Amino acid sequence: MANMRISERSRVDPFIVMDVMEAARRAEAQGRHIVHMEVGQPGTPAPQAARVGLTRAMASDPLGYTVALGLPELRAGIADLYRRWYGVDLDPARVVVTAGSSAAFLLAFTALFDAGDRVGLGLPGYPSYRQILKALSLVAVGIETQAADRFQPVPHTLDPSLAGLIVASPSNPTGTMLNRASMRALIDACHANRTAFISDEIYHGIHYDGGAVSALEVSDDVYVINSFSKYFSMTGWRIGWMVVPEDHIRTIERLAQNMFICPPHASQIAALHALGADDELDGNLAVYARNRALMLDRLPRAGFDRIAPPDGAFYIYADVSHLTENSVNFASEILEKAGVAVTPGVDFDPGRGAGSLRFSYARATEDIEEGLARLRDFMAAR
Amino acid sequence: MANMRISERSRVDPFIVMDVMEAARRAEAQGRHIVHMEVGQPGTPAPQAARVGLTRAMASDPLGYTVALGLPELRAGIADLYRRWYGVDLDPARVVVTAGSSAAFLLAFTALFDAGDRVGLGLPGYPSYRQILKALSLVAVGIETQAADRFQPVPHTLDPSLAGLIVASPSNPTGTMLNRASMRALIDACHANRTAFISDEIYHGIHYDGGAVSALEVSDDVYVINSFSKYFSMTGWRIGWMVVPEDHIRTIERLAQNMFICPPHASQIAALHALGADDELDGNLAVYARNRALMLDRLPRAGFDRIAPPDGAFYIYADVSHLTENSVNFASEILEKAGVAVTPGVDFDPGRGAGSLRFSYARATEDIEEGLARLRDFMAAR
Repeated sequence: MANMRISERSRVDPFIVMDVMEAARRAEAQGRHIVHMEVGQPGTPAPQAARVGLTRAMASDPLGYTVALGLPELRAGIADLYRRWYGVDLDPARVVVTAGSSAAFLLAFTALFDAGDRVGLGLPGYPSYRQILKALSLVAVGIETQAADRFQPVPHTLDPSLAGLIVASPSNPTGTMLNRASMRALIDACHANRTAFISDEIYHGIHYDGGAVSALEVSDDVYVINSFSKYFSMTGWRIGWMVVPEDHIRTIERLAQNMFICPPHASQIAALHALGADDELDGNLAVYARNRALMLDRLPRAGFDRIAPPDGAFYIYADVSHLTENSVNFASEILEKAGVAVTPGVDFDPGRGAGSLRFSYARATEDIEEGLARLRDFMAAR
Repeated sequence: MANMRISERSRVDPFIVMDVMEAARRAEAQGRHIVHMEVGQPGTPAPQAARVGLTRAMASDPLGYTVALGLPELRAGIADLYRRWYGVDLDPARVVVTAGSSAAFLLAFTALFDAGDRVGLGLPGYPSYRQILKALSLVAVGIETQAADRFQPVPHTLDPSLAGLIVASPSNPTGTMLNRASMRALIDACHANRTAFISDEIYHGIHYDGGAVSALEVSDDVYVINSFSKYFSMTGWRIGWMVVPEDHIRTIERLAQNMFICPPHASQIAALHALGADDELDGNLAVYARNRALMLDRLPRAGFDRIAPPDGAFYIYADVSHLTENSVNFASEILEKAGVAVTPGVDFDPGRGAGSLRFSYARATEDIEEGLARLRDFMAAR
């Protein structure tokens, strides 16, 4: 049983949050009630129209392979979203339907980078960027961002030798966004350095005081990655998309044919119908907005007062370095004593994350209220 | 518009068959009737039980993310399949549910190989092996197989320095299988060389004169990749699985968490219900068996008489080197004059495939009869 070697590149970091989730599961198995502020997904299902549309399609269509880049009507519907959301006129030929943003990252990184290339990303940030890069024999270069910069990279900190830069706005875990001037400055700096610019826009549609800026509003010479997971409430369906420059379409098509054959057909049908479900999705959004207002009001009063108010997504990232030197232990303590599951920052920022926590407010408002009350009592007794 | 470089590793070969399919589509758009013997998928939908099960689940479950390795009940059901099909007692913990065999290949290749590693595969063979390897900065080493060896690699031709070997039984495009002794000889040779052994078993369940041998009947120290696409008739659902050695589970779990988050939840539900749909699936199988008998009887009489009778899958690979020096042109001529779409061999074997064609018999029997009649008339007039 020791014949098969394990590769170097597969030795990626474990998710620390998994330990929290496992501890929460054990507590629930013992009959405790846990409030889930660690989860990164809506509690709502796919829109009704998506589910009805799929049920109908299953009765009349064998749902075999689609073409690799996705159903033409779905690509057209996504292109239309850019007109509706940003006023951007987008050729549907540039839209690549993918098996979630995960598949989009795999496609983007293989299309743009060769083994050994160095790719920059802001810290704190989505941990899988770093792990996927490593699995593809690429080198992740973490860029520590500052609260004063809304936790986004800034041009003067960019290493000109980077082969690529990944930016997320709204960001996970901070919910902070790039405004148009900051987005343009980053793209200009990348273009000057021949650094490929990848914009992760999977939380677009979920923002509060102003719209999120798409990199496509600034330039066509970028990769934009988005997903039906968050705004469209379809995490488990694994369906997303990517917009690529015109001269990259054929490369991506060949990669997608070989690496994925096609995105899941049933999920494509569901996504197509979700595109028209604005009323139901706006209802979800109203819940997030209510939850966010509660969080911004009560988290500081509970003692978590070092936060950058989030422009979008459904997360709040709190500096707790005055409360703990070890966010993993602190999260365990909160779970144990308050019955609230939260995410320690170390997954997002291996260095400074020891002093941070991420709170999610994606669930129902009554859960958020209960969680905030428990956090208040926990901190008061501490 | 020329700021973004395209990587070296993404310069994978196009599928030649796509040109055939596009020509067939154009012919149909002009009103011609085309018989599709080029397709690699069943014409049947997912089993009724799978579709009913999913419709029910959509009404009661938000279908969010599952754990990365898949629903525990699906993993248990797949493990049970090994008991039913092969008499193998398999720990469900070793079963990894994947987004089709495509995702399984991405996971296996990253878990086992580092950039620059050389991985062997039989020619003719599934073209995407080579392209996925290249996209992951690995080196595909084609091994030309012989009809006398049932188009499978044999131990004495294996380069001992290979980091891995991919074997497919039943094979695409030939439908030929490894018997137990040949499977054992290959696995033993790989273990002696510390070459990782990957067994592609996605056509298992579709065989005619005897059962297919799983690599798991011979050793636990192998990767086995399988899929719900073919026997379970669920191509577009993108759902499959992989069985890995016990000491590789954690590595695969971390990679899967980061690279895919989870396989599509809806497809997992459908797959779970498909596991119990033996009656409907046996009906599909009876159609393939009838089609195969027709093909083996009439293809030789039409003039395609240099074939290795297929043990499984739904393909026949014919040596047509006495009829043409260019299988791409020959396939075009057959499409043009006979109205039958077939696949030239060059996708499967870049060298010798210029003298081969693949015929698929996955569709309805009346289509196969019509196609065979057209091929007979075409050859008679030639």
